[in-house]
Amino acid sequence: MSDQYILGVDFGTLSVRSTVVRVSDGFEKGTAAVRYKHGVMDTHLTVSKNELLPPDFALQVPSDYLESFQKSAQEAILNSGVVVRHIIGIGIDFTSATVLATDDQGKPLCEYPEFSDRPHAYAKLWKHHGANEQAQRLLEVAKQRKEPWLPRYGGLLSSELLLPKVLETFEKDPEIYKNTVHFVDALDWMSWLLTGNLVYASADSGFKRHYQDGKYPDPEYLEKVSPGFGRVYIDKMSAPIQPLGSKSGNLTQEWAQRLGLEPGISVSVGNIDAHVTAAAIKAVEPGIMTAILGTSACYIVSGPEFKEVPGMLGITYGGVSDGTWCFEAGQSAFGDILAWYIQNCVPEEYAESAKNENLNLHDYLTRKASTQEIGEHGLLALDWHNGNRSILCDHNLSGMVLGLSLTTRAEDIYRALMESCAFGARKIIETMKQHGVVIKEIVAAGGLLKNKWLMQLISDVTRIPLSITEATMVGALGSAIYGSVAAGCYETLQQASDAMGSKIPNVYKPHEDRSVRYDELYNEYLTLHDYFGEGTNQVMSRLKKIKENAIQGKV
Amino acid sequence: MSDQYILGVDFGTLSVRSTVVRVSDGFEKGTAAVRYKHGVMDTHLTVSKNELLPPDFALQVPSDYLESFQKSAQEAILNSGVVVRHIIGIGIDFTSATVLATDDQGKPLCEYPEFSDRPHAYAKLWKHHGANEQAQRLLEVAKQRKEPWLPRYGGLLSSELLLPKVLETFEKDPEIYKNTVHFVDALDWMSWLLTGNLVYASADSGFKRHYQDGKYPDPEYLEKVSPGFGRVYIDKMSAPIQPLGSKSGNLTQEWAQRLGLEPGISVSVGNIDAHVTAAAIKAVEPGIMTAILGTSACYIVSGPEFKEVPGMLGITYGGVSDGTWCFEAGQSAFGDILAWYIQNCVPEEYAESAKNENLNLHDYLTRKASTQEIGEHGLLALDWHNGNRSILCDHNLSGMVLGLSLTTRAEDIYRALMESCAFGARKIIETMKQHGVVIKEIVAAGGLLKNKWLMQLISDVTRIPLSITEATMVGALGSAIYGSVAAGCYETLQQASDAMGSKIPNVYKPHEDRSVRYDELYNEYLTLHDYFGEGTNQVMSRLKKIKENAIQGKV
Repeated sequence: MSDQYILGVDFGTLSVRSTVVRVSDGFEKGTAAVRYKHGVMDTHLTVSKNELLPPDFALQVPSDYLESFQKSAQEAILNSGVVVRHIIGIGIDFTSATVLATDDQGKPLCEYPEFSDRPHAYAKLWKHHGANEQAQRLLEVAKQRKEPWLPRYGGLLSSELLLPKVLETFEKDPEIYKNTVHFVDALDWMSWLLTGNLVYASADSGFKRHYQDGKYPDPEYLEKVSPGFGRVYIDKMSAPIQPLGSKSGNLTQEWAQRLGLEPGISVSVGNIDAHVTAAAIKAVEPGIMTAILGTSACYIVSGPEFKEVPGMLGITYGGVSDGTWCFEAGQSAFGDILAWYIQNCVPEEYAESAKNENLNLHDYLTRKASTQEIGEHGLLALDWHNGNRSILCDHNLSGMVLGLSLTTRAEDIYRALMESCAFGARKIIETMKQHGVVIKEIVAAGGLLKNKWLMQLISDVTRIPLSITEATMVGALGSAIYGSVAAGCYETLQQASDAMGSKIPNVYKPHEDRSVRYDELYNEYLTLHDYFGEGTNQVMSRLKKIKENAIQGKV
Repeated sequence: MSDQYILGVDFGTLSVRSTVVRVSDGFEKGTAAVRYKHGVMDTHLTVSKNELLPPDFALQVPSDYLESFQKSAQEAILNSGVVVRHIIGIGIDFTSATVLATDDQGKPLCEYPEFSDRPHAYAKLWKHHGANEQAQRLLEVAKQRKEPWLPRYGGLLSSELLLPKVLETFEKDPEIYKNTVHFVDALDWMSWLLTGNLVYASADSGFKRHYQDGKYPDPEYLEKVSPGFGRVYIDKMSAPIQPLGSKSGNLTQEWAQRLGLEPGISVSVGNIDAHVTAAAIKAVEPGIMTAILGTSACYIVSGPEFKEVPGMLGITYGGVSDGTWCFEAGQSAFGDILAWYIQNCVPEEYAESAKNENLNLHDYLTRKASTQEIGEHGLLALDWHNGNRSILCDHNLSGMVLGLSLTTRAEDIYRALMESCAFGARKIIETMKQHGVVIKEIVAAGGLLKNKWLMQLISDVTRIPLSITEATMVGALGSAIYGSVAAGCYETLQQASDAMGSKIPNVYKPHEDRSVRYDELYNEYLTLHDYFGEGTNQVMSRLKKIKENAIQGKV
């Protein structure tokens, strides 16, 4: 195995990362990252007529994925110095529930000239929230009919899932819907293009496509939600379903040429980007929670039995590896809140001081904030700047900062925002625990690992030890691990993860005296969490409605 | 009257303004402003041994008042070119409840060498909050005993009033208390020095000295609050009380010399600085509200009858002019909130753009914010960054911003803060109206007049037309108007105000369509106002307590 390599590919929100990984020990021989040309289109359809998009839209251009993938793979292979014939397989992950509408060959409808100015013909990125109303309706009817899959999604239905996004197209642009042969999540679309075989990954199907216990939602249910929509799975999403770690097919001649690889090598079924992390950081075992802390936060943990936990994003059998149940939850913004703050709320004077000290503003503010006693800022924040993805599962919630005084400084608010993110994580963890899911360790990955103060904060607030990873491209490494199983190098995912994954255990341990003091603030957080989130005062969703109306009145 | 002039003098927080005003039409012939040498001492006793002061202290040096007054008066007279014998009187106002401890001649105790290092021997500025605990105790006992004056102060008792400040001295520095012959508000102290007669102004006595219905608080009550304190008014504050617009005496030889004026000319009784504005801007008539919008906001309005309005700062007979009741309320921060925001929360990029356009950040953000539709920012704020002075009367409340999203921009929050200030004003106005006080017009004065968008906002939110003033030194002009009545130039204050005041009526008129849309946001404001302010969730005061403990733990 010491001269066998897998190309691991990780399609993120803004760029794609490729890595050439040694099968024997997970060593990353060469890596490369390439951004998408058009990034995220969330205000205008920049690729086409630059038309204004409705609020809550987040679209991407599918050809961007392919161009960036080709470049990054070629670069990674070049950087690795590995002989091409030693690369024996490809593993892929993608942002999940990024939904494409394609023809029968997998060509996205937006590439047809007659549809190039139609928003619904583009890729709806995971964070596209245009289907809020549809998600609401799907949920209500599911509740009325007591659909058996509902508890698997925490009794709720996020507008980020595939089904509301497809329903949105059905209702908002019937012509696009009619011309779509396949609605497909981007991770399945990629393996389809690379191999010529369309198969749906079972884990993604469970988490994002409402496939539970061997079936899709009942056509009668779908018809009741929207007349004419009943046959959507039968007509537009019919293909075999395959477990994680299996092979979707062999690399086509065409793509072998584009990437500079040997044709016929193994291509894994597609993985959800966040979930491959568990393999990369040795958190496949039950009770070890993977925490991916980047722009948003994703938490997954496996357990031996099914537990009904409210407010989860998904509970899926075989979600990370065959034989266990996987529980997934998330915060729709985490690093994004801090980045928003740095971008929009830090005064000139601080920017200059940071420059003089050669620090970026995150480091500068963290250092200033870290000298404070717990509670010294007098503030409390809610981490809902992009809604609440888990437990409350409400996109209409929004962020809040309370306790402001005339002496409040930028570092005070920055610290309160970091704390609110940690409190949001604790609320998720406690809900899981209260419903029987064991969590004894957190392994963290993602861009925020570099903020050590924040990592310690999470450990203090949750009272759980925090391990970290040293892998540079966690997602791509994880994909390579799944790719190595698909290529037959390992029998089980656990074996592959043990051999190829990277983890430094218990780097951050909770300090009980700090934990006790954070409890006080957390209890205040909980009170406001319930007051604003559980329906006592729905001011946040009303403000959002007023905002939408104001913008519409203006257009 | 066309060759008669009055010297109007306005003692503010940081400087004194003098103006020579023509009696016939209020024309300001010459003006001057001079700052106090030691400003406000709020961290150290800078004038003496530079000792550290306790938190919440705000002291001043009395001799600063006299030096700056002398200079500014001389300059104003010089600038006016008016022949000295044509100046027939002096009118004075001063920051209110700025309390001095003096000997029998009006010499402040801090000027005795043996007391020069004793904080309680200095002038306690209006915003000195060292007597918070005393105010609390005075209130509790007053409530128990159902003291009849309590409703006149909205059922509450601010630590900014004279009584808690004197009690603080009694309890914290008994020697100073013992050696004090007169505790006197600065406005009465000034007329005392200028004329040699100590008289207390009735309006200030009602608003700040607990003089209601012809008497001071019951000695039994005072004795119960603090044993030995019962005779404070009898022993230390015994002097005649005189109505506003009356004469306290004639200018002494000594002060005539110091100022360069004729001895024997009329000196008015002292006025509260904010209240003289009503005369200067022609808002003496019942139903016309004076709004002084600066760092904080002060609202006063007269009415023909007494009404029990909860949460007022004060309700006093003859508070603005004889024969009417005056109702006063305020917001403890207004412009201060916007200034705090500009200082602490606006990103570098905005600072640069504003500079390039030669705009200050207030104007830059206001312009950006003004293009929005109502509610487009999706935000709601509470204007309690410095606590709530009226209606809730709670120093422990704090500011809040809710509705934050990842697309929230600096101008959004700035606008939401301006709106919260306007909502706070509306809450005060509506509380007055609900309890029978008529308000049909607002006349605005103060530094925020220059923000025209904000003025329109206040009119839209309150549905009341807003007039403004053109006077450059509103306070000094107001004092001159009271001075002209005291000098016998006019029979009534109303006549003097009509002739000498400055007002441009109805510059801003409410637009019903905008008012209706602001109603929606205001209703949300009210819900949170009550939730956080009326005791349902006292998170703000708990956070303040946690903050205090954190800081103490650190020291």
